[in-house]
Amino acid sequence: MTDIVLGKNQYGKAENRVVRITRDSARHEIEDLNVTSQLRGDFDAVHFAGDNGHCVPTDTQKNTVFAFAKDGIGSPEEYLLRLGRHFTGEFDWVTGGRWAAEQYTWARIQGDDGEHDHAFVRAGTETRTAVVQIDGDDTTIIAGLQDLKVLKSTASGFVGYPKDRYTTLPETEDRILATSVTAKWRYNRLDLDFNAVYADVRRLLLAGFSRNYSYALQHTLKEMAEAVLDAHPEIDEIRFSTPNSHHFVVDLSPFGLENPNEVFYAADRPYGLIEASFLRDRADTDHWSWDGVAGFC
Amino acid sequence: MTDIVLGKNQYGKAENRVVRITRDSARHEIEDLNVTSQLRGDFDAVHFAGDNGHCVPTDTQKNTVFAFAKDGIGSPEEYLLRLGRHFTGEFDWVTGGRWAAEQYTWARIQGDDGEHDHAFVRAGTETRTAVVQIDGDDTTIIAGLQDLKVLKSTASGFVGYPKDRYTTLPETEDRILATSVTAKWRYNRLDLDFNAVYADVRRLLLAGFSRNYSYALQHTLKEMAEAVLDAHPEIDEIRFSTPNSHHFVVDLSPFGLENPNEVFYAADRPYGLIEASFLRDRADTDHWSWDGVAGFC
Amino acid sequence: MTDIVLGKNQYGKAENRVVRITRDSARHEIEDLNVTSQLRGDFDAVHFAGDNGHCVPTDTQKNTVFAFAKDGIGSPEEYLLRLGRHFTGEFDWVTGGRWAAEQYTWARIQGDDGEHDHAFVRAGTETRTAVVQIDGDDTTIIAGLQDLKVLKSTASGFVGYPKDRYTTLPETEDRILATSVTAKWRYNRLDLDFNAVYADVRRLLLAGFSRNYSYALQHTLKEMAEAVLDAHPEIDEIRFSTPNSHHFVVDLSPFGLENPNEVFYAADRPYGLIEASFLRDRADTDHWSWDGVAGFC
Amino acid sequence: MTDIVLGKNQYGKAENRVVRITRDSARHEIEDLNVTSQLRGDFDAVHFAGDNGHCVPTDTQKNTVFAFAKDGIGSPEEYLLRLGRHFTGEFDWVTGGRWAAEQYTWARIQGDDGEHDHAFVRAGTETRTAVVQIDGDDTTIIAGLQDLKVLKSTASGFVGYPKDRYTTLPETEDRILATSVTAKWRYNRLDLDFNAVYADVRRLLLAGFSRNYSYALQHTLKEMAEAVLDAHPEIDEIRFSTPNSHHFVVDLSPFGLENPNEVFYAADRPYGLIEASFLRDRADTDHWSWDGVAGFC
Repeated sequence: MTDIVLGKNQYGKAENRVVRITRDSARHEIEDLNVTSQLRGDFDAVHFAGDNGHCVPTDTQKNTVFAFAKDGIGSPEEYLLRLGRHFTGEFDWVTGGRWAAEQYTWARIQGDDGEHDHAFVRAGTETRTAVVQIDGDDTTIIAGLQDLKVLKSTASGFVGYPKDRYTTLPETEDRILATSVTAKWRYNRLDLDFNAVYADVRRLLLAGFSRNYSYALQHTLKEMAEAVLDAHPEIDEIRFSTPNSHHFVVDLSPFGLENPNEVFYAADRPYGLIEASFLRDRADTDHWSWDGVAGFC
Repeated sequence: MTDIVLGKNQYGKAENRVVRITRDSARHEIEDLNVTSQLRGDFDAVHFAGDNGHCVPTDTQKNTVFAFAKDGIGSPEEYLLRLGRHFTGEFDWVTGGRWAAEQYTWARIQGDDGEHDHAFVRAGTETRTAVVQIDGDDTTIIAGLQDLKVLKSTASGFVGYPKDRYTTLPETEDRILATSVTAKWRYNRLDLDFNAVYADVRRLLLAGFSRNYSYALQHTLKEMAEAVLDAHPEIDEIRFSTPNSHHFVVDLSPFGLENPNEVFYAADRPYGLIEASFLRDRADTDHWSWDGVAGFC
Repeated sequence: MTDIVLGKNQYGKAENRVVRITRDSARHEIEDLNVTSQLRGDFDAVHFAGDNGHCVPTDTQKNTVFAFAKDGIGSPEEYLLRLGRHFTGEFDWVTGGRWAAEQYTWARIQGDDGEHDHAFVRAGTETRTAVVQIDGDDTTIIAGLQDLKVLKSTASGFVGYPKDRYTTLPETEDRILATSVTAKWRYNRLDLDFNAVYADVRRLLLAGFSRNYSYALQHTLKEMAEAVLDAHPEIDEIRFSTPNSHHFVVDLSPFGLENPNEVFYAADRPYGLIEASFLRDRADTDHWSWDGVAGFC
Repeated sequence: MTDIVLGKNQYGKAENRVVRITRDSARHEIEDLNVTSQLRGDFDAVHFAGDNGHCVPTDTQKNTVFAFAKDGIGSPEEYLLRLGRHFTGEFDWVTGGRWAAEQYTWARIQGDDGEHDHAFVRAGTETRTAVVQIDGDDTTIIAGLQDLKVLKSTASGFVGYPKDRYTTLPETEDRILATSVTAKWRYNRLDLDFNAVYADVRRLLLAGFSRNYSYALQHTLKEMAEAVLDAHPEIDEIRFSTPNSHHFVVDLSPFGLENPNEVFYAADRPYGLIEASFLRDRADTDHWSWDGVAGFC
């Protein structure tokens, strides 16, 4: 028999769909989240001996997620912080973990008398994300969003790239630039108005995307990152994973038609995939916050 | 060998992703569609003899879809009508068909100087749908939307239902009512401002959903239908397919907590599924428009 | 106020995920289904008055689905027949309905001593489907499968088609033919060994797909239909909805390479979509069985 | 303006759907892959100055992926190695990268004369995965599979876990254990018969899952890991990400029925999520191979 050891591990209950209605007045509020709790610590016995003495059931983690919602959500970051502190405080052998949430946005329905008190319609295509990780005495928060679909119908080009024997792409100074933004940013403080910062980062990402001529999607990501890091000193780093969602100009010449960038075919696969991180300080390139966060290089 | 005959059939190119940019001025417009073209007519030879003499290639249908976008979209209904008339006019043996589109909504990004001229962000979670069908001299149009997610946090109950030996559901006079609306409505005219009617029907569906106490999702669908049929004489029928997206009150009593409809678990499966059609005139219950439209009883 | 009437409607509980283990001996059997129950009948009151007196809860339908699994599944068709007869027998105003299932296939894991008694691995990519509908004294059964992915790497071509100004497709006598088969067939009897017939139809569809040179996907569908209808007199009709999953030969000539049908690009969208029904008797072209079954013209 | 620096980054073309037919004889072979190429190196200029002088187009990467398929695939690992060595050799500033593939399995259709020469049916629900990464002189390979769905109908329990105020789960000594295995294993050599090793690892994972009584999913993962690491010295580490796909015994007592583990409800969300790595040597816990591979802690 080979001697084998347990490496990195975590476990918990994933995708608890928590909906919290605040109904202190006739004007209800809704918070709608998908919450995952995962514990880290001393879990050798359950893996090697089938001894569950340390194995806090995933069912218990689920119950705790719902019970803690009773005291209100507030923001996904604050709610996850409360959960993480509970689990690491409650069980000696739980030395850390990862608590993550997706949050969905609802807007009020326009009723007969304006904004409705308790009827809502799902708004926006993007999802807000948050990850809190604890490792002993360290706590880190990564906020983000995903599936924010944006498109520029001009003011984008791609020229001056290296050519080799496999290059067939023609240069262009006018094309559609489209992507579905996944962005994650790392906070350097735990005491923030997370909802306000989130709203402003979202605004800045959109403005940064739209502002200047794009020489490449990489170039535009830098402008988006710069807008965020300039305005928010509480953010040390922002990472992007962005498909280049190709829109090809359709060749209408066989049908005797010109097509001056009017009719496009939106392709599915393959797609460009641009991933990059922007930081204040290169020393933080490998910050441990990203260990448990998928999807970036 | 058994004698077999060809029954209903149609074929074409599905899911052509057409993006049309109107750039007559600095303020661009975007129309973003997913278009399917299917032909009906005399197609026995291709099925029984492998003789393609009548088989207009699906590739040609695709080319036509893109070429016709050069002249502008305007509305999915008008665009599909032009396509349908082309195919049935161009080929003697094509006596009808089905042309369908999904349309995705984009909003202008708020840039440094207000609404941006050529930068957009995907808006709304719902998709607009349209189906044009031609059968000889008859033409019919069904408009619709899908994935319009709505939720009421109160003013919904379910009581007074029949009980049998398999009934365990308790009655409730206060629950969350949530659904993702798929609605399709049948026009009785071809000369409409389709975009304006669509926007108003969407508005009325939301208002109808939110207006009154809901005794059952079926009851609320009737209110939504009534709002639409009252305001739009050009619509003869509206059909719904709506999941009852269950939100269960979480039992927090094992943890010593009360839960007066504050913390809910949003379930995935199973879900209620309510499908119903509302018409001006029962004589039209089996209108041929619905033959090629999936998803309703 | 407009007078509006209720047209076609049905409601129930969708996607009940029933797993039934038969453990009468050490060698367990597994049946894994996704079951939908929908009732039809006199449901005007719930829609128009919010009166639930006739509204058998979807929760009760769910309970019944699980309770009936206690007596065994046997085949999805037999199980759905039992459910349908129960609901129409139990409630006077329920005059019919639609009961549908998807079934997933599991194979035994090869353990240390051959086929394992109680450990299974999901097998096959296709899903078996069944729909039972009752309308008063009439009962009809449609069996089927979906997502059966097949591909021929040669013995397929497409020539001799009509050309017009929008045609650019070159003819070819050697191409890949690939599709994902959705097929549904209508039985003319209720007393069948449904599992055995299903297995044989699946076998015949694959053999029919592979047997002869394909002049068009339509032509190959006819061969598949013929194989089934010849061998199974208990089947009156079979319908197909099949994407033509395009595999394009990649042009490697810019890189100085030949490509004699060796390297292909598998495209996503758009795709051809071929839908056709084959019957023994044209009189049955509009058989009521298909009213509640989506996806065909 | 804040000074910002570029952190980790990579870019390329994702999800190139390559189908390679080997047709040297009448008996064709098919290889069906989804290939992603991403480059790493000196890419500051494109991000900060919009200077594309180093930005090898993603389109060129796509062309290369297809051109290299002309020389055959062999195994995804060997094919990706060839691609990686090409890109790092061709462009001075490309010092590394990540090349990944999913591979889909096809079986021969049983035709009239046994296994068909050129007609195939998609087999298995799982997908084989491979990732090659190059960083300067270092090269690393991670092989894997995902979506391998397995289920044990007995010989699984969960007892002896810690209880706190949020615990409501009852202990059980007989339950269904089901998961969808995602496993990734790291090779310590580049010169392997990758297809043969893959097939054997898959076999060992299934056998390991089924062999013994399961005290927890973590415990069963250890048995699967042990089976693989014992038999394959060329593998230094294996990581799992496995949902605990809950199958709840349905309470049939309200209907007067017993349910001795016969009728189950297969739940969707939430689900347990168990992630763990097993290694020969704890020194390798943070091996750089995993930097570009998502989904593990």
